[in-house]
Amino acid sequence: MRRVMSYTVAVVGATGAVGREMLRVLEERDFPIKELRLLASPRSAGLELPFRGGAVAVTALTAESFVGVDYALFSAGASVSREFGPIAAAAGAVVIDNSSAWRMDPEVPLVVPEVNLAAAQVRPKGIIANPNCSTIQMVVALKPLHDAAKLVHITVATYQATSGKGQAAVVELREQARAVLAGEAPKANIFPKTMAFNVISDWKTGADDYSEEEWKMVHETRKILGDATISVSPTTVRVPVENGHSEAIWARFERPMLPEEAKDLLEKAPGVILDRSAYVPGGGPDPRMATGRDEVFVGRVRADVGTPGGLCLFVVADNLRKGAATNAVQIALGLAGLPY
Amino acid sequence: MRRVMSYTVAVVGATGAVGREMLRVLEERDFPIKELRLLASPRSAGLELPFRGGAVAVTALTAESFVGVDYALFSAGASVSREFGPIAAAAGAVVIDNSSAWRMDPEVPLVVPEVNLAAAQVRPKGIIANPNCSTIQMVVALKPLHDAAKLVHITVATYQATSGKGQAAVVELREQARAVLAGEAPKANIFPKTMAFNVISDWKTGADDYSEEEWKMVHETRKILGDATISVSPTTVRVPVENGHSEAIWARFERPMLPEEAKDLLEKAPGVILDRSAYVPGGGPDPRMATGRDEVFVGRVRADVGTPGGLCLFVVADNLRKGAATNAVQIALGLAGLPY
Repeated sequence: MRRVMSYTVAVVGATGAVGREMLRVLEERDFPIKELRLLASPRSAGLELPFRGGAVAVTALTAESFVGVDYALFSAGASVSREFGPIAAAAGAVVIDNSSAWRMDPEVPLVVPEVNLAAAQVRPKGIIANPNCSTIQMVVALKPLHDAAKLVHITVATYQATSGKGQAAVVELREQARAVLAGEAPKANIFPKTMAFNVISDWKTGADDYSEEEWKMVHETRKILGDATISVSPTTVRVPVENGHSEAIWARFERPMLPEEAKDLLEKAPGVILDRSAYVPGGGPDPRMATGRDEVFVGRVRADVGTPGGLCLFVVADNLRKGAATNAVQIALGLAGLPY
Repeated sequence: MRRVMSYTVAVVGATGAVGREMLRVLEERDFPIKELRLLASPRSAGLELPFRGGAVAVTALTAESFVGVDYALFSAGASVSREFGPIAAAAGAVVIDNSSAWRMDPEVPLVVPEVNLAAAQVRPKGIIANPNCSTIQMVVALKPLHDAAKLVHITVATYQATSGKGQAAVVELREQARAVLAGEAPKANIFPKTMAFNVISDWKTGADDYSEEEWKMVHETRKILGDATISVSPTTVRVPVENGHSEAIWARFERPMLPEEAKDLLEKAPGVILDRSAYVPGGGPDPRMATGRDEVFVGRVRADVGTPGGLCLFVVADNLRKGAATNAVQIALGLAGLPY
C-alpha cells in the first residue's frame, strides 16, 4: 500500500473506555500516524498505553496540546469538548468529537461514514461530531432502506449495555451481579439503583418526559439522514449487559418495504452484517457476539404484522466500537481518502 | 368474614415454578379451601409442599384425580392440559388452565379478571384459559385506555425474564453469570446460547418469521379485549433478569389520548399501580421491585413524540404471579364471587 501522507493524531480522553478503544481501532486499521499524542486529565499524565507493540505516554491536556495535530479525536465528555474542541480546531486540527457537545450545532456536521461522509467536508468550526451510539447503529441499518423507499416513521426500543455509561459502570454491574448471586445486597453508586438482573432507564431527564438519550435518537437521526420530516418514537432502556447495544426497530416508509427487498438492500449495505434467518430461536445477532466487532449486525428482518407495508428489524452493535471509537476513526480515514 | 362455601381445589403441576406460586397466592388470598390436591408427575409424588403452616403431599396425576374437585388449576404444560383438562372438566371441575393448549379455542374463554371476568361464565368445555404472561400485563394496562378511546394499534417490545422459561432457566442464568464473572465459558443447556449478560430471543419459531410468543401477544390481546380489529406489532426479547417482565408499549387510539387523561384512568384502574413520574432517571417500575407483587406497574406514561395523539408507557409485572399464578387464582376467586 502506497502512502502519500502520514498524520499527527491526538486522542483526548485516551485513558477512558472509548479512548482505549480508539487506540485499538487506529492500530487495527493501520492508520497512517507519524505522531500519536495521548491526552487526558493531569491525574492520568505519565500513564503509558500500549500502541503498535510499544507504549505511548499520556500527557496532560492543555491549550498547547494541539500544535501540529492533523486529527484530534475527542472522547473526554462534553465540557472538555466544548472548551478544547475550538482550541484544537483553531490550531488547525480536524476535530472529531465523540461527546454530545457539538452534535446539534448547525455548523457542525454529524457524521456516520457509511451514511453521510460527504457532510464531513463542510465544517465551518473545524469540528465534526460523532453521533450517539444508539443512533449510529440505527442509521447504518436504516440508510439503505431510506434511500430506496424514504423513511416516514421509526419506533425504536433499546436494550443498552452498561459500557455506554463508562468502564466504572461495567465494573459496578459485575460487582452487583456477584452480590446478588451471593445473596448480598448490591450497592449502587454509578447506577441509580440495582442494574444487575434488572432493567432500568438511567439517562438524564430531557423535555416532555423523555430522557436525553431518547431526544438524541430523534434529533440526530434527522440530522444524519438530512430529513427533518422523519418522525421517531424512542424508548431507551438499560439492560444488564456489559457491552453491545441491541435495538428493536419498526420502520415505515413512503411505500411498502417487503422483507425480501430489505434483506437484499441490507446484504449489500456498507458496514452491515445481515442475518437472513428472520427467526431462529436463540439465533440472530446478540450483544455478546457483536462485542469487539466493527459492523452493525441486523437480524429478524420481517414484515410488521401490525402495520401493512412496515418493516421490523433487530439491530445490534458494539457501542464502544461502531457506536463510538470505530466511527470516529472511520471519519478520519474517510477524510484522509483511505478505505474505512 | 362470612363464608357460604368452601371448595376442593386441585393444582396440577404443583411442584413447578408457577404451581408453587399458585399455592402461595391461594394462601395469601385466603382462598376458601376444604381440600387441596397437589398433583404432579409420578416422580414428584410423595413430595410435601408447605401450605397454611402445614404440609400437603403431592400425588401422581391420574384420570381419577378430579373426582369432587371444584377448581382445577393447571400449570403443567400444554400436553398435560390437552389430555387432562377435558377429564377434569368432565368430572365437574372448573378448569383454569395456565398453558397455551386451549387459549385460542373459540369455546374456551381467555380471561384476565380486571378485563373480562364475565367471559369466564360462558365455558362450553368447562375450561377457562389463563393468557400468556406478556399479554396479561399488557391488557391490564391498556384496558382502561381502550374503554375510553378504543385501541387501534399496539407496538410492543418486551424485556422478558428467565423465570418465564421455568425454574431451571433461572438456575442456568445464575450459573452462567457466575461463569462469566469467573472468566469461564458459560454452559448453555436450557438456553440456546449464553443468556447471562446477553439479550436473546429463545421462543419457538411461529409463522411469518415471528416467534410463537409474538403471535400469542397478537391473538390473545384481540381475544381478551374482544376486538379483532386491534393490530399488534410485537418483538419479544429475553433479557438476563431472574423474574419480572418489562414492556415498552406504544398505543394508538381512535382519538388522541393525552398522558394526563391516561394517568387519571390508570390511577383508578383495577390491578394497576401507576408511577406518575413519567421520567426520573432510575425511577419508575422495574422487574426487581415488581417481583413478589400481584399488581401491574405502569410508568413512563408520555405522549408519543413520533405519532400525534399516540401514547407510550412502560409496563412491568411479576410474570409468575400476575402473569400466571395470581391471574389463575383471581379467576377462581371471581367465579366464587369473592374479591380478587
